[in-house]
Amino acid sequence: MADQTPPAPVVDVPALNALLDGTYVEVRNLTRKRLVEHAGVLDDQREMGRTEFRERVKDVVVELAGTGQTGLGFPTEYGGGGDIGASVAAFETMAFGDLSVLVKVGVQFGLFGGAILQLGTKRHHDAYLRDLVAADLMGCFAMTETGHGSNVQALGTYAKYDLETREFVITTPDDAARKDYIGNAAAHARVAVVFAQLQIGGQSEGVHAFVVPVRDEHGAVLPGVRITDDGPKIGLNGVDNGRIAFDGVRIPRENLLNRYADVTETGVYTSEIENPDRRFFTMLGTLVQGRVCVGGAGINASKVALSIAVKYALGRRQFGNPGGGEELLLDYGLHQRRLFPLLARTYALHFAQEVLAGQLHAVFSATDEVDERTRRALESRAAGTKALGTWHASETIQECREACGGAGYLSANRFDALRADTDVFTTFEGDNHILLQLVAKGLLTDYSSSFGELDQLGMVKLVAGIAVDTVIERTAVHKLLERIKDVIPGWDDDSSGDVDAGLLDPEYHLTMFRWREEHMLSGVARRLKRGMDRDMEPAEVFSRCQDHVIGAARAHVERLVLEAFVAKVAAMPEDDGTGNKTALNLLCDLYALSRIEADRAWWMEHGRLSSQRSKAISREIGALCRSLRPLAESLVDAFGVPEEMQATEMLAPGTNEARDLKQGRTHA
Amino acid sequence: MADQTPPAPVVDVPALNALLDGTYVEVRNLTRKRLVEHAGVLDDQREMGRTEFRERVKDVVVELAGTGQTGLGFPTEYGGGGDIGASVAAFETMAFGDLSVLVKVGVQFGLFGGAILQLGTKRHHDAYLRDLVAADLMGCFAMTETGHGSNVQALGTYAKYDLETREFVITTPDDAARKDYIGNAAAHARVAVVFAQLQIGGQSEGVHAFVVPVRDEHGAVLPGVRITDDGPKIGLNGVDNGRIAFDGVRIPRENLLNRYADVTETGVYTSEIENPDRRFFTMLGTLVQGRVCVGGAGINASKVALSIAVKYALGRRQFGNPGGGEELLLDYGLHQRRLFPLLARTYALHFAQEVLAGQLHAVFSATDEVDERTRRALESRAAGTKALGTWHASETIQECREACGGAGYLSANRFDALRADTDVFTTFEGDNHILLQLVAKGLLTDYSSSFGELDQLGMVKLVAGIAVDTVIERTAVHKLLERIKDVIPGWDDDSSGDVDAGLLDPEYHLTMFRWREEHMLSGVARRLKRGMDRDMEPAEVFSRCQDHVIGAARAHVERLVLEAFVAKVAAMPEDDGTGNKTALNLLCDLYALSRIEADRAWWMEHGRLSSQRSKAISREIGALCRSLRPLAESLVDAFGVPEEMQATEMLAPGTNEARDLKQGRTHA
Repeated sequence: MADQTPPAPVVDVPALNALLDGTYVEVRNLTRKRLVEHAGVLDDQREMGRTEFRERVKDVVVELAGTGQTGLGFPTEYGGGGDIGASVAAFETMAFGDLSVLVKVGVQFGLFGGAILQLGTKRHHDAYLRDLVAADLMGCFAMTETGHGSNVQALGTYAKYDLETREFVITTPDDAARKDYIGNAAAHARVAVVFAQLQIGGQSEGVHAFVVPVRDEHGAVLPGVRITDDGPKIGLNGVDNGRIAFDGVRIPRENLLNRYADVTETGVYTSEIENPDRRFFTMLGTLVQGRVCVGGAGINASKVALSIAVKYALGRRQFGNPGGGEELLLDYGLHQRRLFPLLARTYALHFAQEVLAGQLHAVFSATDEVDERTRRALESRAAGTKALGTWHASETIQECREACGGAGYLSANRFDALRADTDVFTTFEGDNHILLQLVAKGLLTDYSSSFGELDQLGMVKLVAGIAVDTVIERTAVHKLLERIKDVIPGWDDDSSGDVDAGLLDPEYHLTMFRWREEHMLSGVARRLKRGMDRDMEPAEVFSRCQDHVIGAARAHVERLVLEAFVAKVAAMPEDDGTGNKTALNLLCDLYALSRIEADRAWWMEHGRLSSQRSKAISREIGALCRSLRPLAESLVDAFGVPEEMQATEMLAPGTNEARDLKQGRTHA
Repeated sequence: MADQTPPAPVVDVPALNALLDGTYVEVRNLTRKRLVEHAGVLDDQREMGRTEFRERVKDVVVELAGTGQTGLGFPTEYGGGGDIGASVAAFETMAFGDLSVLVKVGVQFGLFGGAILQLGTKRHHDAYLRDLVAADLMGCFAMTETGHGSNVQALGTYAKYDLETREFVITTPDDAARKDYIGNAAAHARVAVVFAQLQIGGQSEGVHAFVVPVRDEHGAVLPGVRITDDGPKIGLNGVDNGRIAFDGVRIPRENLLNRYADVTETGVYTSEIENPDRRFFTMLGTLVQGRVCVGGAGINASKVALSIAVKYALGRRQFGNPGGGEELLLDYGLHQRRLFPLLARTYALHFAQEVLAGQLHAVFSATDEVDERTRRALESRAAGTKALGTWHASETIQECREACGGAGYLSANRFDALRADTDVFTTFEGDNHILLQLVAKGLLTDYSSSFGELDQLGMVKLVAGIAVDTVIERTAVHKLLERIKDVIPGWDDDSSGDVDAGLLDPEYHLTMFRWREEHMLSGVARRLKRGMDRDMEPAEVFSRCQDHVIGAARAHVERLVLEAFVAKVAAMPEDDGTGNKTALNLLCDLYALSRIEADRAWWMEHGRLSSQRSKAISREIGALCRSLRPLAESLVDAFGVPEEMQATEMLAPGTNEARDLKQGRTHA
């Protein structure tokens, strides 16, 4: 089987591009146009000092705001576009361009604007939204502290209610509690949304958000506010990250963002949500769009890298070929093996992201109240997709840069900024490991818990308190096994003779992914419970199971990604006159099999993969790569990354293969 | 077994540091001192423009040259130190500091100086060595071309002998043949060693090296030479990389570096080495020190990253602990799992590098002629260690940066430059994949071939021509199996009952590594031969086996690394009054088991690891990590990375754990 390569389907690039762009094709095309208009920032930044680069990025953001491009998610009455889904599509597409611009847009409109919109009430909307949507009022989102990164509930900054003056007094008690890595803080923000412990009469009510002015209209830092610059960073140097500390800064009572809780003039704390943990995570949950956007940006940054690397490999020859000339890099089996599984995973993640963005739009555009379980499931899916999408970006961009050798090391060819700028995606908007713990918690408790996303010890206790049987019952491994045996006889059986049976059957892939997820999940539940039964410290129990917890979550998200890809391909018409469905089927098979291969040890350890079949999977991956070889350029062209966003000094003049291929000639 | 943690040994940091520094402790300490003197360049570069940074780096290089630090490998009669081993030790240690300085030193003294020394004869030594050792004459090494990266034999630049004027005429025929990524070219080199096709009367004699002046004493580019700047790069922006093209530049006949071949005045080509391939690779082989140095630098850069990340994890708390306060990051099982296997591999690679540097010193300091097989084995080992050492650096620095979250993203905390500067290590001085192909070729042909390192198709034909039995006989898998069954009964047998038997026995580890290597190697030989027997195109045969070829080479190098580590620990006295041997044993076990775990699927596929034992290995790794937890800070301190080279804005003030630990107090 592995030796027979069927004739290559012909990809219809515009049609595939339209499929990828989906519902928001117009928004995406408009964004591409804007990016091309501002493409100069990609080159110019390499010769700019940090201050100049920051100003340039700010200018671009202000110009984009003027086009309405960045305000699509805000209500129309404040100058926005009133369409959450469109705003996500625009943001994702902006990841083709400069990522400092992207992140500054995220800070201003997503984090700062999102907090005002979601946590504030009409008085805050009236006061700030129109100006911030127009980028007349720049703001920042002051949550993270130097000593408390992912553990937001433990923040040190506090806001004490002063009954006499009816003000809150914001204080940074020590350097560990200073706000840190805050985008827009070092130069441009006039206002900060500050997360702080609300204190009334010696009583702490937990973390709440407050609007705190930090600069006057001339940009001078206000009294009681100390701001320092975080200085140069690995990337994103067009964004002015800084540290903020508050020395008893007074703000009016009305500056509490009071959608979920309020303090009366007389200092009485009120909230419709009684449980403080639940209240806190309800507030945080409204900010989920940020994670959806970062994950989507990571996936799209990967598309840029793959577009460059595939074209380079089609323009660059290496070593002698007896037929004359050197071989194209992309004709090497290893080169295909390095790039094509990443290409397949990029497609897979794209479609998974499309499902997620659709769910986000549905939940946040719903006119009826959305139940809490649905919200939690959305948050979990956003967390998991963000983790996988951003790790994927790091891996893909790095592999693509190495696959371009010395040329990949030159800043002009874009991997420099791509890699450096996306690097922090894996740790901001929630460290990826912590996010996967959140996913696992949701799965183990069936999203029923009011416990916070980040409280690991709470999770241990909670799971230990649940009957493990419940988890096991839900994760119906035994039923799956029965089913798959009907579908593919002998699939997990050495003696069946045909190790290739069903290798390209999506039912086989799905069953493998589902079985792993459910087996890992019930295993984690057992281990957590056993540890607690033995009277171990919860911290110790958690520490020992942590990689298992994260593995289970990852298996879950990978299953969601595969399901999204399989469903997308299945929904395409059987014969639309193009080879697009055939091509996507090849990619989907490659995605599934290369993920199985990557974790094949696990399936072998658990008796679900024979060594013969494991080797057959590796052979099949080689065959799929060869089948995809003639389609590679069309498959990256379909991403629609504008040429101006790609490499500028990549091909040696005189090597015209890439251009020829574009014109339909073939060198395969 | 996995649940019992024995009492932690006490590491004697100075003694362990002395063990790591080895023979060249004085050279290493002197280098540390010089680095500290020039530590300012680490901070200052972040605010410098590229031109200024390049000049600063040049100044540091010139100052270092003045101390004799950079000329240790040159003959004493030209102002050098006459000690190859010492020069490698100094270079490796310089990797603790700024890596632009390191690479510029490598370009000037290693590549440029090394080519003059190794490929030239007395007239070249007399003319250039003293000045270049003193850094009065800056030069560059013009080998790589835009269109011909790793395939040096296919270079396009040519040097035509003009019988009338007794000159060579150097010409760049097209843009693909321009010299590219050449360090020192864009600003500082006055002379280039140019690799070009030697042509005499229409006959090509293959690639040779020529000394070509490129700038006058005022720094003006000479007529006929075109130099352009490669511009900004991902990292190493203190090094002036550029492109050079030659328009019929004339140089005297004597500028041919003629140690291995010469041209008489009358245009007769002479060489003691008849076979042109053998001649070419003999020339290249003399330049092996560059690869040894880059590998060592990668390993030492990893030490910097681990020193920073381990200390951060001992100073940073995260999430609630019922006992009060938050947990230290390093108490999390996942955090240990992320950092400690990399720490163990750094130690392993360090000792493997020590063996390699010792062999290099022996071969290049030998007074008798060294046989060709020994030289080839050295080149192969250098290639393999460079590949593994530099990939390890990329992986380790990235993991460490992520393990430090937002703090790791700030340039002040060093991961920025560390990551960006080392990134190209994986593709320069030979792309790592190509280097592993060289290793495989040597193994398959038992270093007997006169074929070049880079000719893949030659390799296919050659191997196909050898009786596969020869390879299989040499790779005596069956004998190994017999032996191990005596050592550890039931080691590959599910039914033995005790899956933990011998898990910590170095004989078990070594046998696993050796078995994999030999099995993969004989498998590759069979596949190559089978392809040729079927009349497939050699290019196609190679393309399909390429990942297998590289896998075999990697398995070989990993075996060498493990052997070096095991031998080092075995040679330590049983009881020297410290816990150092116990600590290194833990690290060595962790190295071996974590490598087995990483590739456990392979062993399972090949029936050498039961699923039960595979799981036991993962458990044991967890236990080893817990045992290493109390030793972690001592184990990174023993690297002896000067404090000035570490992070500057890492710990939140008020978290004193790291300092306390240094003073002997424990928080474990």
